Amino acid sequence: MKKLIALWVLLVSFSFTKAQKTGEQQIIRILNEQVSEWNKGNLEKFMIGYWENDSLVFMGKNGPVYGYNNALTNYKKGYPDTASMGKLRFEIVSVKKLSATYYFVIGKYFLTRTIGNANGVYTLLFKKINGEWKIVVDHSS
Amino acid sequence: MKKLIALWVLLVSFSFTKAQKTGEQQIIRILNEQVSEWNKGNLEKFMIGYWENDSLVFMGKNGPVYGYNNALTNYKKGYPDTASMGKLRFEIVSVKKLSATYYFVIGKYFLTRTIGNANGVYTLLFKKINGEWKIVVDHSS
Repeated sequence: MKKLIALWVLLVSFSFTKAQKTGEQQIIRILNEQVSEWNKGNLEKFMIGYWENDSLVFMGKNGPVYGYNNALTNYKKGYPDTASMGKLRFEIVSVKKLSATYYFVIGKYFLTRTIGNANGVYTLLFKKINGEWKIVVDHSS
Repeated sequence: MKKLIALWVLLVSFSFTKAQKTGEQQIIRILNEQVSEWNKGNLEKFMIGYWENDSLVFMGKNGPVYGYNNALTNYKKGYPDTASMGKLRFEIVSVKKLSATYYFVIGKYFLTRTIGNANGVYTLLFKKINGEWKIVVDHSS
């Protein structure tokens, strides 16, 4: 009986660790995919990590801007061509699990461009929606 | 028996609603207290909402800055006197419960000063630590 309990504890903790790792790994994979699409000049596909919903939040200078469509429109305005998009690189500082449905990501971004480099930091709130991790709040500065 | 179950469901949902409201109310009270201390020129007491720990995160221009002491030192450097501190006002946009131990707050800040006004936005990650809500990540921009 003791052995069975020990085995059960081992299996539960193993699957728990696995689930945690998978969430983090999935999020890192999504961010890497976004970078890859940005560097192909494809803004629509870059948006793949974002919640396609009117409640998606982008923190702007004067307050939150809501909605996936507004976010895409603003990206298109800010980055109208591949020269302004340049080459993106993320430095993911931490991917922290908050609960079964939320992760908090801290990172830095670097844009290498012929028209002048740019860089900054970001915090992202990821939520598991219909089995997929999606950015629900993006605060970049 | 049915009546008993109905009563139990009612009591559980009532206490759940109460707990949710209390978390949000506690956080709003903390933020209001911080504003009040700022406006008295007391930076140490303004810090009351922050996690007094080396892992507290402030998002800076070049990446996260860790630690309560560094945060306080940076505030003292940035706001050396009451003229530079001015009068602070928060506009809390949303206080969202993520789990039993995490809340996510979106807001705007406004500094009215004789040396020139300043304003911006913030996202805060609150965590319940030893029964108290504490800011564990501050991203202001």
